[in-house]
Amino acid sequence: MSTPAHLDLDRRPRIGMVEAVWGQDKQAHQIAAILCDLVAAGETALVTRVSPGKAAAVARLLQAQTPGGPPLTHHPEARCLTAPALPPIQQGMGRVMVVTGGTSDHVVAREAAIALRCHGVHTSLVEDVGVAGLHRLLDRLELLREANVLIVCAGMEGALPTVVAGLLPQPVIAVPMSVGYGVSAGGNAALQGMLASCAPGLTVVNIDNGYGAAMAALRILNARVGFREPTREIDVKGAGAGDRP
Amino acid sequence: MSTPAHLDLDRRPRIGMVEAVWGQDKQAHQIAAILCDLVAAGETALVTRVSPGKAAAVARLLQAQTPGGPPLTHHPEARCLTAPALPPIQQGMGRVMVVTGGTSDHVVAREAAIALRCHGVHTSLVEDVGVAGLHRLLDRLELLREANVLIVCAGMEGALPTVVAGLLPQPVIAVPMSVGYGVSAGGNAALQGMLASCAPGLTVVNIDNGYGAAMAALRILNARVGFREPTREIDVKGAGAGDRP
Amino acid sequence: MSTPAHLDLDRRPRIGMVEAVWGQDKQAHQIAAILCDLVAAGETALVTRVSPGKAAAVARLLQAQTPGGPPLTHHPEARCLTAPALPPIQQGMGRVMVVTGGTSDHVVAREAAIALRCHGVHTSLVEDVGVAGLHRLLDRLELLREANVLIVCAGMEGALPTVVAGLLPQPVIAVPMSVGYGVSAGGNAALQGMLASCAPGLTVVNIDNGYGAAMAALRILNARVGFREPTREIDVKGAGAGDRP
Amino acid sequence: MSTPAHLDLDRRPRIGMVEAVWGQDKQAHQIAAILCDLVAAGETALVTRVSPGKAAAVARLLQAQTPGGPPLTHHPEARCLTAPALPPIQQGMGRVMVVTGGTSDHVVAREAAIALRCHGVHTSLVEDVGVAGLHRLLDRLELLREANVLIVCAGMEGALPTVVAGLLPQPVIAVPMSVGYGVSAGGNAALQGMLASCAPGLTVVNIDNGYGAAMAALRILNARVGFREPTREIDVKGAGAGDRP
Amino acid sequence: MSTPAHLDLDRRPRIGMVEAVWGQDKQAHQIAAILCDLVAAGETALVTRVSPGKAAAVARLLQAQTPGGPPLTHHPEARCLTAPALPPIQQGMGRVMVVTGGTSDHVVAREAAIALRCHGVHTSLVEDVGVAGLHRLLDRLELLREANVLIVCAGMEGALPTVVAGLLPQPVIAVPMSVGYGVSAGGNAALQGMLASCAPGLTVVNIDNGYGAAMAALRILNARVGFREPTREIDVKGAGAGDRP
Amino acid sequence: MSTPAHLDLDRRPRIGMVEAVWGQDKQAHQIAAILCDLVAAGETALVTRVSPGKAAAVARLLQAQTPGGPPLTHHPEARCLTAPALPPIQQGMGRVMVVTGGTSDHVVAREAAIALRCHGVHTSLVEDVGVAGLHRLLDRLELLREANVLIVCAGMEGALPTVVAGLLPQPVIAVPMSVGYGVSAGGNAALQGMLASCAPGLTVVNIDNGYGAAMAALRILNARVGFREPTREIDVKGAGAGDRP
Amino acid sequence: MSTPAHLDLDRRPRIGMVEAVWGQDKQAHQIAAILCDLVAAGETALVTRVSPGKAAAVARLLQAQTPGGPPLTHHPEARCLTAPALPPIQQGMGRVMVVTGGTSDHVVAREAAIALRCHGVHTSLVEDVGVAGLHRLLDRLELLREANVLIVCAGMEGALPTVVAGLLPQPVIAVPMSVGYGVSAGGNAALQGMLASCAPGLTVVNIDNGYGAAMAALRILNARVGFREPTREIDVKGAGAGDRP
Amino acid sequence: MSTPAHLDLDRRPRIGMVEAVWGQDKQAHQIAAILCDLVAAGETALVTRVSPGKAAAVARLLQAQTPGGPPLTHHPEARCLTAPALPPIQQGMGRVMVVTGGTSDHVVAREAAIALRCHGVHTSLVEDVGVAGLHRLLDRLELLREANVLIVCAGMEGALPTVVAGLLPQPVIAVPMSVGYGVSAGGNAALQGMLASCAPGLTVVNIDNGYGAAMAALRILNARVGFREPTREIDVKGAGAGDRP
Repeated sequence: MSTPAHLDLDRRPRIGMVEAVWGQDKQAHQIAAILCDLVAAGETALVTRVSPGKAAAVARLLQAQTPGGPPLTHHPEARCLTAPALPPIQQGMGRVMVVTGGTSDHVVAREAAIALRCHGVHTSLVEDVGVAGLHRLLDRLELLREANVLIVCAGMEGALPTVVAGLLPQPVIAVPMSVGYGVSAGGNAALQGMLASCAPGLTVVNIDNGYGAAMAALRILNARVGFREPTREIDVKGAGAGDRP
Repeated sequence: MSTPAHLDLDRRPRIGMVEAVWGQDKQAHQIAAILCDLVAAGETALVTRVSPGKAAAVARLLQAQTPGGPPLTHHPEARCLTAPALPPIQQGMGRVMVVTGGTSDHVVAREAAIALRCHGVHTSLVEDVGVAGLHRLLDRLELLREANVLIVCAGMEGALPTVVAGLLPQPVIAVPMSVGYGVSAGGNAALQGMLASCAPGLTVVNIDNGYGAAMAALRILNARVGFREPTREIDVKGAGAGDRP
Repeated sequence: MSTPAHLDLDRRPRIGMVEAVWGQDKQAHQIAAILCDLVAAGETALVTRVSPGKAAAVARLLQAQTPGGPPLTHHPEARCLTAPALPPIQQGMGRVMVVTGGTSDHVVAREAAIALRCHGVHTSLVEDVGVAGLHRLLDRLELLREANVLIVCAGMEGALPTVVAGLLPQPVIAVPMSVGYGVSAGGNAALQGMLASCAPGLTVVNIDNGYGAAMAALRILNARVGFREPTREIDVKGAGAGDRP
Repeated sequence: MSTPAHLDLDRRPRIGMVEAVWGQDKQAHQIAAILCDLVAAGETALVTRVSPGKAAAVARLLQAQTPGGPPLTHHPEARCLTAPALPPIQQGMGRVMVVTGGTSDHVVAREAAIALRCHGVHTSLVEDVGVAGLHRLLDRLELLREANVLIVCAGMEGALPTVVAGLLPQPVIAVPMSVGYGVSAGGNAALQGMLASCAPGLTVVNIDNGYGAAMAALRILNARVGFREPTREIDVKGAGAGDRP
Repeated sequence: MSTPAHLDLDRRPRIGMVEAVWGQDKQAHQIAAILCDLVAAGETALVTRVSPGKAAAVARLLQAQTPGGPPLTHHPEARCLTAPALPPIQQGMGRVMVVTGGTSDHVVAREAAIALRCHGVHTSLVEDVGVAGLHRLLDRLELLREANVLIVCAGMEGALPTVVAGLLPQPVIAVPMSVGYGVSAGGNAALQGMLASCAPGLTVVNIDNGYGAAMAALRILNARVGFREPTREIDVKGAGAGDRP
Repeated sequence: MSTPAHLDLDRRPRIGMVEAVWGQDKQAHQIAAILCDLVAAGETALVTRVSPGKAAAVARLLQAQTPGGPPLTHHPEARCLTAPALPPIQQGMGRVMVVTGGTSDHVVAREAAIALRCHGVHTSLVEDVGVAGLHRLLDRLELLREANVLIVCAGMEGALPTVVAGLLPQPVIAVPMSVGYGVSAGGNAALQGMLASCAPGLTVVNIDNGYGAAMAALRILNARVGFREPTREIDVKGAGAGDRP
Repeated sequence: MSTPAHLDLDRRPRIGMVEAVWGQDKQAHQIAAILCDLVAAGETALVTRVSPGKAAAVARLLQAQTPGGPPLTHHPEARCLTAPALPPIQQGMGRVMVVTGGTSDHVVAREAAIALRCHGVHTSLVEDVGVAGLHRLLDRLELLREANVLIVCAGMEGALPTVVAGLLPQPVIAVPMSVGYGVSAGGNAALQGMLASCAPGLTVVNIDNGYGAAMAALRILNARVGFREPTREIDVKGAGAGDRP
Repeated sequence: MSTPAHLDLDRRPRIGMVEAVWGQDKQAHQIAAILCDLVAAGETALVTRVSPGKAAAVARLLQAQTPGGPPLTHHPEARCLTAPALPPIQQGMGRVMVVTGGTSDHVVAREAAIALRCHGVHTSLVEDVGVAGLHRLLDRLELLREANVLIVCAGMEGALPTVVAGLLPQPVIAVPMSVGYGVSAGGNAALQGMLASCAPGLTVVNIDNGYGAAMAALRILNARVGFREPTREIDVKGAGAGDRP
């Protein structure tokens, strides 16, 4: 009754994104198998929420399987694995900046950056500009004005995206952080604050969802440059057995 | 101790949006006063969540004040007031489609459409394509593919934006609806479902927040066409007394 | 089985505050009776959350009872009644400023101001400085620096007290507002945001609790000027029947 | 004060189901003792939520007690133990299909399958057909049409049962999964979404409750084939001491 | 911008149910229009949650439109409207019993009964057998044993379905009621209790969802008698424009 | 399909209490019918949560039905109706005191008192002893020491029962009140505080449940004096049709 | 800054209970010190929620301190420690029965039994009579009728106390259990169900609070036999320094 | 992509407080680096929520880096680190007392005391005066009357600050504790109780937030003695690059 995961390999032609593998729940051998399948299918493979120990185990498994095989890269600060080599940066796609309030937001910010990097998007981090010391943000306004899309990560009360969206005209994607204690533990206070924001046009993703924010930014960049499906027509409505292996 | 509202008239040059007036909490005379101020300042004024009775009261007040004054338009299906005339549609800005699951989502969908219309954006409604009868959505996929941005309103379990974002590559802004009863009353089930979505890159706004979704779409369209601040430089950081009356 | 309310007339000598009457739950004749008792006991009487209709009914009752009796004042913008005349302002007590984010916070802000005014405290309102248009707050920083205590009211995401407490050194008492819809309806999002605040030393009171914030400010002012109990010693622990009528 | 568990051995004749033992909370020696009692009473014993270590400990205990004793089977992918041999499949009972959205749902799906297998029901798994890649589900519609009852497991936003119940006429039992993070952590978002479903006639069980879904399916199959109590009449209302040891 | 509702008229051939119209949110003229469309399409029309006043208004509108038109029936105890005449009872489909704990559950129980009646199902009500006086339920066990499916409505702590499912082998669909006060107000305590039930195989629908419980029972009855789609094949996956008007 | 309520007339011999009718949800004609049935069965009838208008309607209906019929008493301060005459006070049963924190708790306190009075229990009210002015409670300690059971009603933070149970040895039944605003609205803060109490042996009933607290006190008084079932033996387990009309 | 705990040694004369030590949060050396203080003061010491390892550590510490010192008893099935010897059973106080639904409730039931045993109360356990197999409870009704007070522990949906209180006239104290998963995890579903109970006069304590239920039962037994404070009068209101060491 | 934390070194001149480092989320090497930066900048460094193991690791790292370097002090009872030497007590600032209900509140109380001590404030602890034994608090009223500000920590139902604020006129800052089980687990019951308090002028901080309460007290003391910013003017609004290193 062993079941390999059924990958959604049509995702890239359909919506322009590779399938990311959520690593937290999966065992090393499951991740290794999926990575092989994705690489074999010509995809850039991204695994999120991988602990250092699990990353090492995956690396050993891949190395044992195909010595000198697909190069696996571990991004420990982002808790991510990628394989094979990352695609080149496409400057024309536009630029995303990932803004954080404090040290505890860095991992999720880097997850967003890696996820965009997997799609060739140029991404910068603008960190530690929390609203308790407002001048740190105000000092960087001109820098932030250069971005095409802003991803803003904040825990605690989650006020940073509200302040940013009140000052700047770009799309702002807010990412609530699960850091904190008491009412902010788990990120719900930040999430509610972002949804309730008095700044117009702020959008929100799930708590700690750096990957999701990155994909939302990618949709915007694709809309900007005119994403076009490849010529192989995807028959979503009536996709028959013959279309897929 | 009477206090007129202090309008944020710098909002349009700063972030490209007019200040919308949330009418639910305000009395007719307050709304009338704010409308006059906004129109006097050369802005397009938008008031949301206005009941028919309150709309009529505002109209009477404005008419009494300045007979033959600024033309006030009531959009009863969207619960909105606008004044004066709406700006011309700017076809180059791109096109937004507002998708709904059922009849109960129509008012919020229309609020979003009016809010975009106030900024010259061309908006279409694609209604009653809820996931319980999936073919209704699948039949309209090619139509939806024409949009630059999709706003998807859904109540109940809120699954529609997930299905849409799994099929199409554009930016998808999900709006949970407060309609329903039991666990779906108030819109929280739909909100949670949208945030928890398994479709990558879905973003979410507050429950019933048609205006907010519209402004998020506007930010994306502006990013697409390259929003540029007007020449009058806004000194956000050190805005002195001389800049503002 | 009719029971008159048992007033806590020792409150002023014990903790320096008059007992406020929460009017929302009480009928006009109950309020009128309590007002008479308080005035007869030489207290300044304050009733909060009184609708215009109920205020008029109380006035009629008091007038019928003692024509030319204790002067009752209705403060409709604060939903409050006071009687008899308010005490003179005591400049030496210090100055409180009540800061609000938007129009919907005005009633609660005025309730706080009236409650302080009943104790002779000089109070100013600084309104409509919400964080979505940050310059409105930054423009008033020098003014706010003059206050001894700041009460900051905000609904929606409730970020304003966080920003204020990050910029200024005074005691900041945050009052979450119940205004809003979706996740901000009822004020819980604002409350959580204020408790989770990243600004150090922010304190919070219950949603819409303008009176409570005022009393917290009064405690601080009293601590500042050295509140001293009157000479009549209150025997809290063993207060016998002889001490109280 | 040692207390052996009092088993409900009347359950099978009364409602057609064996008592399952919830293993998560119990120690190995408790599970071993209950297994012996159930096997001695002629029942098929099922223990759910058993970790690999606990399963091994139970096996050791049973082996020590009665070498060559009742054959214990460990189903690690379902976290279940069964003893003795499973009954033969009864093709006439009908067929259940267990549908899952993603890899993280497999354990609970298998728990449901084992629980049905313990009652002789033929069960198939249809896995990884989550709604983010809708064609995977649409490709299997004809297969699903063969089932008499559908159990649909989904985490995240939990939309899969809604889509299935909108497309197919069979009884659909939805099982929310506890996988996920942020708002989907613990399974509450999926649960709410399933209860709020816009698809008519969807029913829901507790989060991760594969066993419960299986028993609900068994009730339906029994209703289908006409479950009849055995001739030994159960005196539920006045069951006297003589009926039970 | 007037939009008629887009009815899902394929629902009956697809899943064997007519589309019910949720009347609470709709205005009389909207309901009247939908009723006409459904009747014109040859469907049995069911409108739920209609107040007496709204029912009268709908009747007037229909009468004005087509005097002597489709016979509209008002079921005030169920808050429902149906049109035209109900189909004959099909004894072979099996029998549903709707069990209630107390007087406050009667409306929802009747909504379930009417919804089943619209599909020709024979339904009985077994009322006021709440668990606080257990003998009332025990006295009716033999009666309940006759049902093919049991729908059990209960408010307060919602224990009734648990007791029923522990005593009887049939499918039991639990409907939590919103009646009550304090922790039971809104029906959440009953809902949680039903989901947490220690009785195996209990399934649950949304609070007050009598219609949903009826449709779940209908799915079970259809599975029992072998629901077969009509010969007109529904092309769900690739439904082209030609298939639908 | 008209269904009279099935009363649980065995309740008094079984557990020593009459069935109370929860009037909030019922219409005047339903209440009148139940009252007649209860009085005809020789019971003391108690209806709770009856508005003044509904009480008058019930009185009119009863008077029309049987002029000079069973004397109905309206207790407006308790929102209760009783019929026929109340039984005599039985001094030997012991004495209950109902303690309240403030004016808003009086209605529920009186509901408890009436419910006990219907069973012949002597009950006193000790009101307005909230913990914000602690001496009011301390002054009455010797009085409270006379009670056999204490029912303590409190809203807001609900601290009063904790303080009482820390000072006195009797059974203390805490009743949270739904009065208040913000976090105390609906009574949940008080409920949680009472359940979390640091005072040992405090028990809690549902929010506003004066009747429930009274019945809990009655159980205690009955245990004290040795409640004995009447000679007519109630066959709870096997109650046959012959036992009940 | 080392602080020994300040014990409330007046508790027994004041309210008839010894202070129990909540062991979960305390370290072994803290528990040992408190035990010594309590024993030295002539009290029966009870420590709850002590793991086996912590119990052993406390035993070692006490033995090291005073070899042959106060006899410490470990009750592992109740997670409790007691010292010195337990007092003799006082048959005249009455009898408490602790009823449980399933195996997972045994630890808390035993905690209640030990806590009562520390006060000389005779307590019996009646276990595994959950409502999913109702006859198990009905078989024991006559036994339960012998108790003066019933403590009923139940997890999952928590229906057992409701059924018991509907059948028997004694005081029933309900204890919700934290066992379970999904909606029953943590015990909230059981707690809500017990508070919402349709059985009159049920009272509830905090989740898993066996000690609290025991003390509530003790208050009832004390009320039954006429608890009298000892002759040394406790001056609660004005307790001066001279009264306490 | 290594990012050192960007410290807010302007905080002391701006609002009179040093930046505290929340240690729970940070690794030892991150804490060590921040400590060095703060000490190098001439600040008193405070790290909160540091486990003993992490504290030792930080000490080792600092010692390795600069042998004989800045003296690091570990306050294990407060889970805090400070460096370098603490400033002298400034008696003129006034006196804070930190009041606790029970043993479990001591760590947070000590965190508050250390945080105040870092700013030269004289702080005393008044412990174990929980309301279940009220005389312990009443015995210390005269002592508490000496404080300029009261910080009151309480878990469980959180009633202590309410009782204190009802008896004393000073500013009272309530700190809810996360200790407890069932409804008090995590501190939410205490938090809600404090916010809902019937005592006027109580303010609240986040659960377990000893540092926050200390900073709120510091703001009050600063307001009392007239906090004055240093001569170096902070240009918050237009802080240019030249102003900051």
